[in-house]
Amino acid sequence: MRAAVHAALLAELVEKGYAALSVESVAQRAGVHKTTVYRRWKDLAALLVDALAEHIAADIPIPDTGTVEGDLRALARALVASHASPTGQAAVLAAMFTGAAHLPEVAAARRLVFEERFRRAEPVVTRAIGRGELPAGTDPAELLKTMISPIYFRLLLTGEPVDEDTADQAVRVTLAAARAGALLPAGR
Amino acid sequence: MRAAVHAALLAELVEKGYAALSVESVAQRAGVHKTTVYRRWKDLAALLVDALAEHIAADIPIPDTGTVEGDLRALARALVASHASPTGQAAVLAAMFTGAAHLPEVAAARRLVFEERFRRAEPVVTRAIGRGELPAGTDPAELLKTMISPIYFRLLLTGEPVDEDTADQAVRVTLAAARAGALLPAGR
Repeated sequence: MRAAVHAALLAELVEKGYAALSVESVAQRAGVHKTTVYRRWKDLAALLVDALAEHIAADIPIPDTGTVEGDLRALARALVASHASPTGQAAVLAAMFTGAAHLPEVAAARRLVFEERFRRAEPVVTRAIGRGELPAGTDPAELLKTMISPIYFRLLLTGEPVDEDTADQAVRVTLAAARAGALLPAGR
Repeated sequence: MRAAVHAALLAELVEKGYAALSVESVAQRAGVHKTTVYRRWKDLAALLVDALAEHIAADIPIPDTGTVEGDLRALARALVASHASPTGQAAVLAAMFTGAAHLPEVAAARRLVFEERFRRAEPVVTRAIGRGELPAGTDPAELLKTMISPIYFRLLLTGEPVDEDTADQAVRVTLAAARAGALLPAGR
């Protein structure tokens, strides 16, 4: 049931935009009664966060290649690939911005989804510190934000193409900064 | 006349959003005839780009402090301050996203405005190279994108507060990457 409701929510979101989304329409599309949905998720926002987190986890698995460079490259390339896919995050993100970027529950959902992503990817950084590849104390969330920011900047603001080169360049910048100790919380 | 039309466009944009914007409404607010506007700007998109570029140039002057760190810090802090101001870029940006993020002319306007900003700030990087502070060949646009990306990431995606610390941290990361040669076009 959970997977069907998630899929229905994402399909409704991409097709109609956030503004037209409702627990009713999602339930109907998933072929379940809306009270079934409300038993599991307290409201549309909770369902949205759950579905997006799951969607991203499926799209962007956490790698363990043995080196920080390999891991970060895999993460950044998966992010780029996921945005290039027509059913992927680009569509979801566009739907969340269209007519809804300013809604507090959409902003909160976005924040929660990013926090969840940073939390999931944390082992990449802690393993790198363990192997002596990055300075002890390097802030995982700060590192991941540094890496994905230029990719989103291009996607959302300049509209430049994003590809594997964009991903690799983001990794290069992030590693240079991390190795120089610019991503330590104490450095703030 | 140009300043009055610019001011009218920004006021209409912030108050009503891009979707409700028209040459007619801007002309009326500025107290000029719409043919006067059309004589100077070929369409609403051209007027939008011109007004935004001017708005940003006034908000974010190009510094010349004598060091690359001082210059970048001044730029990044001015960007943060401009987004914190109620009549500043945050409002303009929100208005451009609300119901309009997906429109091709809005995307094109955004791209042109960013290109203009990178072009204006180029001397900061070329002077730094001249003083031997950054590797020869450091790409100015790439450097500026690296610096402002994490600020926009927070503003648009996670909704975290942005302040002088955010600005200074972005400068720290950018300088570490640039000094390590991660912002050379050849490095791509």
